[in-house]
Amino acid sequence: MALGKKPVNGMKDILPDEMQIRDYVQQVIKDTYRSFGFTPIETPCMENIANLTGRQGGENEKLIFKILKRGEKLKLQEAEEEADLVDFGMRYDLTVPLVRYYANHANDLPNPFKALQMGNVWRAERPQKGRYRQFMQCDIDIIGEPGNLAEIELILATTETIGKLGFHNFEIRINDRRVLKAMALYAGFTEESCDAVFIILDKMDKIGVDGVSAELKQESFPAEVVERYLSLFKGIEEAENGLFYLAKTLDGYLEPAVKQNLEEIIESVGAAKTADFKIVFDPTLVRGMSYYTGTIFEIAMPEFGAACGGGGRYDRMVGRFTGTDVPACGFSIGFERIILLLLENGYRIPNQKPKAAYLIEKGYPAAGLAEVISKAQMERAAGKQVLVVRMNKNKKFQKEKLAAEGYEEITEFFADRAQVF
Amino acid sequence: MALGKKPVNGMKDILPDEMQIRDYVQQVIKDTYRSFGFTPIETPCMENIANLTGRQGGENEKLIFKILKRGEKLKLQEAEEEADLVDFGMRYDLTVPLVRYYANHANDLPNPFKALQMGNVWRAERPQKGRYRQFMQCDIDIIGEPGNLAEIELILATTETIGKLGFHNFEIRINDRRVLKAMALYAGFTEESCDAVFIILDKMDKIGVDGVSAELKQESFPAEVVERYLSLFKGIEEAENGLFYLAKTLDGYLEPAVKQNLEEIIESVGAAKTADFKIVFDPTLVRGMSYYTGTIFEIAMPEFGAACGGGGRYDRMVGRFTGTDVPACGFSIGFERIILLLLENGYRIPNQKPKAAYLIEKGYPAAGLAEVISKAQMERAAGKQVLVVRMNKNKKFQKEKLAAEGYEEITEFFADRAQVF
Repeated sequence: MALGKKPVNGMKDILPDEMQIRDYVQQVIKDTYRSFGFTPIETPCMENIANLTGRQGGENEKLIFKILKRGEKLKLQEAEEEADLVDFGMRYDLTVPLVRYYANHANDLPNPFKALQMGNVWRAERPQKGRYRQFMQCDIDIIGEPGNLAEIELILATTETIGKLGFHNFEIRINDRRVLKAMALYAGFTEESCDAVFIILDKMDKIGVDGVSAELKQESFPAEVVERYLSLFKGIEEAENGLFYLAKTLDGYLEPAVKQNLEEIIESVGAAKTADFKIVFDPTLVRGMSYYTGTIFEIAMPEFGAACGGGGRYDRMVGRFTGTDVPACGFSIGFERIILLLLENGYRIPNQKPKAAYLIEKGYPAAGLAEVISKAQMERAAGKQVLVVRMNKNKKFQKEKLAAEGYEEITEFFADRAQVF
Repeated sequence: MALGKKPVNGMKDILPDEMQIRDYVQQVIKDTYRSFGFTPIETPCMENIANLTGRQGGENEKLIFKILKRGEKLKLQEAEEEADLVDFGMRYDLTVPLVRYYANHANDLPNPFKALQMGNVWRAERPQKGRYRQFMQCDIDIIGEPGNLAEIELILATTETIGKLGFHNFEIRINDRRVLKAMALYAGFTEESCDAVFIILDKMDKIGVDGVSAELKQESFPAEVVERYLSLFKGIEEAENGLFYLAKTLDGYLEPAVKQNLEEIIESVGAAKTADFKIVFDPTLVRGMSYYTGTIFEIAMPEFGAACGGGGRYDRMVGRFTGTDVPACGFSIGFERIILLLLENGYRIPNQKPKAAYLIEKGYPAAGLAEVISKAQMERAAGKQVLVVRMNKNKKFQKEKLAAEGYEEITEFFADRAQVF
């Protein structure tokens, strides 16, 4: 019986052209982050199921691929619910594994610990075009640095990476969870309604101020609270320095240190940046994950509707594994989105090795073959990529295909002209 | 509640020191194989369960981590056996996925197709020291080349890679399934008993000729057949050219082309090799996987008891997916074993970037920080790895730790000497 040729539903095989670009981008990411002192680490692709559920994963927890217990541990007849059948789950992000890793190895790690992770994650979403159930994530995190040196280095390293891949004229948007909260409380929202307010605020990009206003009122928030809230955004927009205006207006609601923190990040990044981008305070930036405790940020690309990466500070997550809070801050590049953009733009990898192909005619004597291969070895040692293949009957077609694959130099070795020593 | 800190049972977190070496080895592997015209590809870590079971995987099929069905497809109450509960499985090797990939995309791939795969595989073995349930495999394969150009290129590329990692004085052992079979038939074993004979022959390394003789007799094979069989190995050992002796002795049992094929590979590899190793005919080499159809080979390292990689020709496996056989040959490096050897030998990665650390005293003014970071950016651009961290209270200890991490150059930035422009 012939077997199924297709990959599992919702996941994809990566063909050579895309793979080349993925490999190159991974290399740029690694090299750049390493130059900032980030250390690559790896965790298993599976985690104990208890670590993945009932916590910080939000919607992602519904999308876990779960691993069936094995051998005697699997008691199929006695199982009453799903939880009885599984022990591990595929990770749905790299943050939970990182925090577990840090909790497990903190004594053996540098302090602060600057980690780089590149790895696949799995989410059992309904398969749809352009969205896969296995995809690469690429995270950097600094654990153990309470100050904004962490944010500054994360943003500089990430923007430098993006810049090296040829992107320019992009934007880093930055905000703080505490700014979001202070604005809501100042306007008159209750502490409990904050999350509901932020979910609506998060749509500002798409539905505008009027849309946000309408949705907030629809949720039965008092009109005067909504007006007061939205007037803040207007005030920021009209002010010469939005952050300055806001801090002044929110006096009593917002700690001065929060404003100062944002200001320092924006100024330091602006002064030390190497890539071509702007860093701007964006009071409408929300970022979904509930574990963020302070600064939050996002990469906005003009070429791409959605964000191409983001992150923030999550000072209370390590404590969930260890009982003791440790300050932490991370930035995740939208690896798959970056690859998509590069592929769409016909990206060409710079400084590639020259490619040569040797075509060996059928019947070429074995002793001569050793000579040809030795020649190929010398060219390889000198920095060339050399492909040694048999000459096909339809040589013209073969040469055209090779040319299309980038083999600029093609040498033919004919059996009757073989040199045998 | 504090969560579990440990990785799942039998899998491991990779710490920075090991990760650095793994990354470096992966880079050497990729660069070297690319110079031979191999193309990196990737498949999903999961395969449809039907593709993983009931086929060529042998013992590995018992070790599959299986993925629970999700949503409506999971009918827990109606399930009678394990198979009703699962739809996907974690791959246990890279060969099945490669063949499926080739079957799926052959029209879009070069011919012959030279693939490089590096990826994790999973086997639910009983956890034991030094053996993990998630580990990296690294395979190169040539699909569509019937001649020994495939074997020659595979062996040259792999040995060059191993050589670049500092290994020398190793051995490539080579044999052919057809040689194994001809020897057994010549001795008087039946075709059906061949597999049982080879399983015993495979232990020659460990139990010697006498042990093999005893075990064969224990299986009730006639003594004269066993003697005749073992006399062949003695004859090979005593002959000036073992392969020549064998071909002559097996006249009528072994096709001359098989001998010629091995001879050509041994000669061509010997002539064109760049690393320091020997390639030798080894009539006791068996290789376990049942899918091999011709040449088989293995890397033997003096530093390591077992093989550090191996492969062979499997001309009839693609046909199982497509219905049409396509010649194929592969070589797998024992990635985890290589890493283990390098770690044990205290391997130092050559040509690493110089590492500098900046220690920033507490209270350093924000405007001055931008200056310090700009200086770090310049050093990074010039090829240095620069870590910018806060100065700890226990500065002496911090500096010692940094030195141990390879930061040779440590610069201190004191708050009262900050330059602010």
